[in-house]
Amino acid sequence: MDFLVIGGDAAGMSAASRAKRHRPDLKVTVLEKTADVSYSACGMPYNIADPERSIEDLVVRRADVFRDKQGIDLLTGIEATTIDPAAQTVATRSADDQERTFPYDRLLIATGASPIKPDIPGVDMPGVMVLKSLAHGRTLKAFIDRQTVKKTVIIGMGYIALEMCEALRERGIAVEMVKPRPTFLPWMETSMAEAVKAELEAQGVVLHLGYQVERIEQANDRLAVIAPDLSLEADLVLVAVGVKPASKLAAAAGLETSVSRAVAVDARQRTSDKHIYAAGDCADAFHVVTGKRTWIPLALRANRAGWAVADNVCGMDRRLTGVVGSAVFKVFDLQVARTGLNMAEALDAGFEAESVTIKSRSRAHAHPGSSAIHVHMVGEHGSGRLLGVQMIGRDGVAHRLHAPAVALHAHMSVEQFSLTDLGYAPPFGPTWDPMLTAANQLLKKL
Amino acid sequence: MDFLVIGGDAAGMSAASRAKRHRPDLKVTVLEKTADVSYSACGMPYNIADPERSIEDLVVRRADVFRDKQGIDLLTGIEATTIDPAAQTVATRSADDQERTFPYDRLLIATGASPIKPDIPGVDMPGVMVLKSLAHGRTLKAFIDRQTVKKTVIIGMGYIALEMCEALRERGIAVEMVKPRPTFLPWMETSMAEAVKAELEAQGVVLHLGYQVERIEQANDRLAVIAPDLSLEADLVLVAVGVKPASKLAAAAGLETSVSRAVAVDARQRTSDKHIYAAGDCADAFHVVTGKRTWIPLALRANRAGWAVADNVCGMDRRLTGVVGSAVFKVFDLQVARTGLNMAEALDAGFEAESVTIKSRSRAHAHPGSSAIHVHMVGEHGSGRLLGVQMIGRDGVAHRLHAPAVALHAHMSVEQFSLTDLGYAPPFGPTWDPMLTAANQLLKKL
Repeated sequence: MDFLVIGGDAAGMSAASRAKRHRPDLKVTVLEKTADVSYSACGMPYNIADPERSIEDLVVRRADVFRDKQGIDLLTGIEATTIDPAAQTVATRSADDQERTFPYDRLLIATGASPIKPDIPGVDMPGVMVLKSLAHGRTLKAFIDRQTVKKTVIIGMGYIALEMCEALRERGIAVEMVKPRPTFLPWMETSMAEAVKAELEAQGVVLHLGYQVERIEQANDRLAVIAPDLSLEADLVLVAVGVKPASKLAAAAGLETSVSRAVAVDARQRTSDKHIYAAGDCADAFHVVTGKRTWIPLALRANRAGWAVADNVCGMDRRLTGVVGSAVFKVFDLQVARTGLNMAEALDAGFEAESVTIKSRSRAHAHPGSSAIHVHMVGEHGSGRLLGVQMIGRDGVAHRLHAPAVALHAHMSVEQFSLTDLGYAPPFGPTWDPMLTAANQLLKKL
Repeated sequence: MDFLVIGGDAAGMSAASRAKRHRPDLKVTVLEKTADVSYSACGMPYNIADPERSIEDLVVRRADVFRDKQGIDLLTGIEATTIDPAAQTVATRSADDQERTFPYDRLLIATGASPIKPDIPGVDMPGVMVLKSLAHGRTLKAFIDRQTVKKTVIIGMGYIALEMCEALRERGIAVEMVKPRPTFLPWMETSMAEAVKAELEAQGVVLHLGYQVERIEQANDRLAVIAPDLSLEADLVLVAVGVKPASKLAAAAGLETSVSRAVAVDARQRTSDKHIYAAGDCADAFHVVTGKRTWIPLALRANRAGWAVADNVCGMDRRLTGVVGSAVFKVFDLQVARTGLNMAEALDAGFEAESVTIKSRSRAHAHPGSSAIHVHMVGEHGSGRLLGVQMIGRDGVAHRLHAPAVALHAHMSVEQFSLTDLGYAPPFGPTWDPMLTAANQLLKKL
């Protein structure tokens, strides 16, 4: 049987490796349009922050290991151009314009996500960059290493923008950030978003909210980012306004798409064509809390979905439960985490939602080194169901988040969560963990 | 209505405060035999470690605040001597031998736990100490502050023994530990217990396993701890061989006791007498995993049970779910955590148990500052149910533990846990969190 995989990143290589482990007799072919496979994309900002480390350190497994040790036909520099579901073939073109067609019995589309590039003049000028692939990372790091970048303007204020902001500050580079919407981290509870903003400003980052960038132009030896009533000079402009599913190939083949045009898949990661699977950042998923389709492109899901495809291709019946939208990131010394729905999402989804925001401490009464932890918790009137949690703090926030994520998977009520027996010791938290305090407070309102 | 509380620590004061908040008209009386109420007992080792801090910092709320601000009749230095359930009275004796009788409509027994003192010659000599109450903490810290304690022998190797070991090392005091059983941390998976042992030894702590102490005697100006084939000199001997429920008063009143002679209570914290509640370290609880009674004296449960008593006394119907036995502690730089059952407990409880132990990393591939995390996970064949988790590591272990604790409350299977959407970012863990890796490995064996 021919198992063909388009895309050699997290989902694609996870699927290929696991399928080959399950069934060494399976013919597994991976088509990757770039030269890179299996690298830690999420690690790029942290690597770029450190001039001593090579960007190549981020490669988890080299292509020849997949080829020689695992017996996978891994072809790099080959781009899939058309899928023919009736003929069960994929047409490709290589960098030197060679065309070739690959047959399949089972196909996995793991084409990932593409950075959104706003359609403004100057966005393609030298010194204007995006960060998605390892090739982007190489270019960006080399540019910083080579040039005298004194100031960067980042367009966008999402996860990647914030992680890169920290990386650039660590390299001693001044950072200004600009975005069209007036609200910083709009998905986050207001007082907590303000605390994250304050952390950035304390690190010397200048934020320009409510400015729609109109163009980027050359200004003497530098670049200038121009919005109405705003002109920001920079040596480097990073465009980090988000990503979108790379689903054109799938859509052109007639496969169903859903939220944000992600490829629609069932619990087995199967698309609307029963011989074709999709996984990773190009595919959608069911949200455990709403029960509806959602698109939240994150690394763990990509790996897990790749594995599920391999299992199903090899004849096991593997169904994934949905996602709860857990995400954590670091903004300088602040850990920022969320899982489940925020108030707006909960109300949109039809829940009669209620929330609290509490402030507690990272350590027990009188224990030195304690810092603030803020917890925002959303629940439903009537059912009492837990719907979502957000947290920020300097200590123990990222790992605390796992607990409400598990609670969401278990469809726990706020009361059930409030009664959980969490570990306690003075160096690690108050007797009532901040999450329990939030649950206790929210209970009073439900 | 008279609500009488015996014991003014975590459970007792939580109950008294909450009852008074619910019903300001309620007459709430607390009888505390010592002079101290409402202090962080768990914080004592960390306070003793620091000569700059006063032991009095551990007091969370002073007695006069309970009296003047909250309207609680808080009587210190008064010991309850007899409960007469028929007459609904409690007889007491004060330090100056005054006797007095208190009537009640509802009674809470919150007498806590007592340190076990082995019945060996010399255990009452000056310089031989236990650490349970704040008075013990004062004595111990003053002794260290005043004397030239160069070496301590700790009898016992449980949580408190290990926390005090670290505290004493921070004070520059040599520590030897001795216990009769040959196995270090017998409840812990063997390779992980070895890693904790290695951490202690790396800090210069000398462990003597398999030595039954026979007596403590004077040796020149010092003490000597004597076991067959072993004699250890010390300036201070700390006896930390565990605690037992302080349930004599309850048992003498004819109330039912259970595991370890803890006072037996139902989900509402009510004893076998419908007017009498028990809460805190003197009371038992139901174990969520086994469904059976257990006795695990920990601070969070004491606070929570005290609240539940207040709710029930005030006419609300508050039932607690059980405990899962979550515990975390710190051994120098190592975080040690457990929740649920270990293999021996699971087999004892009749589960067809299986386990794995895996070693992973605290951070993503190629992220600097990564350290080892060990996870031991226990599940059941057939049902696939998650039964317990143990973890050790230098980073993020204590807070990670909350997730499997929640999963145990939700009766999740190992597969369901393995499919949970946990947050990921390179500074906080690998893409597959170590707990998920353990679940994935365990799944293969179930």
